[in-house]
Amino acid sequence: MLFKVRPAAKEDCKEISRMIMELSDFEKMTDQVNITHEELERDGFCQNPFFECLVAEVPEEHKSKEGFTVVGYALYFDSYSTWVGRSVFLEDLYVMAEFRGKGIGKGLLSKVAEVGKKKQCVRLQLTVLDWNTPSRDFYAAKGAQDLTASQGSHLLRFDGRDLDNLANEAPED
Amino acid sequence: MLFKVRPAAKEDCKEISRMIMELSDFEKMTDQVNITHEELERDGFCQNPFFECLVAEVPEEHKSKEGFTVVGYALYFDSYSTWVGRSVFLEDLYVMAEFRGKGIGKGLLSKVAEVGKKKQCVRLQLTVLDWNTPSRDFYAAKGAQDLTASQGSHLLRFDGRDLDNLANEAPED
Repeated sequence: MLFKVRPAAKEDCKEISRMIMELSDFEKMTDQVNITHEELERDGFCQNPFFECLVAEVPEEHKSKEGFTVVGYALYFDSYSTWVGRSVFLEDLYVMAEFRGKGIGKGLLSKVAEVGKKKQCVRLQLTVLDWNTPSRDFYAAKGAQDLTASQGSHLLRFDGRDLDNLANEAPED
Repeated sequence: MLFKVRPAAKEDCKEISRMIMELSDFEKMTDQVNITHEELERDGFCQNPFFECLVAEVPEEHKSKEGFTVVGYALYFDSYSTWVGRSVFLEDLYVMAEFRGKGIGKGLLSKVAEVGKKKQCVRLQLTVLDWNTPSRDFYAAKGAQDLTASQGSHLLRFDGRDLDNLANEAPED
C-alpha cells in the first residue's frame, strides 16, 4: 500500500491526540493519559517546540474503517548524551492496527533516524514495555541494543507531589 | 559546607568535561566517552541548545585536593510525554567523591526540579544502572518510581551502523 511520511502540521494534532489514546489503550494505560490536542498544538508548534512529530498518511481510497487517512505517527525530540553528544529520543511510534505489516512503522522510524542524522545526532533511543513482544522484535530486527538487558539501565521517574517536594527544597540562587 | 548551585556558563565546559570523565570512570565505561569541551560549548551554548547544565561550586578555601572549586554538575534537557506533556530528562547528576554526603547532589537535583516546574514540566526522568546502589537509594529516598521494576520499561538504543542503515532506508519526501 502506498503511504506518505510527512512532518506533522498543527492541524494534525487532533489526529495525533486520537492515536495517542489508541496507543495507550494498546498499552493498557488509558487512565494515565491526560493531554489534549490544544496542549500538543501549544507545545509542539511554538518558538522552541518541546517535540517534533511525523505522521503517516494513506490515500483517501485506502482510508481506515472509521474514515481516517492519518494512520500512524512518530513523536520525538532532541536529547543529549554526555558521552557521544547529540541524540534523538523517540517517545512514541504508532501505526493503527489495520495498517500494520505494511512497512509504515519502519518508514516512520527510518525517517526519524534520517532527521536525526541531518542534525548530526549519533544515537536514537526509546523505551519499550517488556511484554510488548511485537515492538521489541521489530526494534531488535533493526539493530536496537536493549540497554536494560545488557547493562542494567533502569528508568526512574519523579512526578506529582514528589516533584513538587524536590522543587520546593531547591537552594536559593 | 557552603556550596552554590548556578547555571553553567560556556567557560565551565572544561570543568564539566573533566567531571563527565570522572563519572564515566565511576560507571566503568570511560572507553565509551567521546566528547570534548568544544562540543559541549557548541551544543549547550548555541541558539537552540541541546541541553542545559547546572554546576555546584564551593568557596576557594574548600577547593578539592586537586584545586577544583566546581565539584558537581547536573546536565538535563527538555523532553515530552504524550500522556502528560512537558517533562525534564536528567542525563547526568554527579558530585566529586570527596564532596559527597553534604547535600550537594540533593541541591542539584532539587534545582533541576525547580527549573522544570518553572517551565510547567510535570515529570522528571532519568536512568540509573542497576548495580549503582548508592544512586538508586538516593533517588528512591526522594520518591522516584522505578519504571523498569514496576512496569517493565526497557531502554533501547540505535547507534553507529544501525542508525546509518535506518536513516538510509528512509522513504523519500
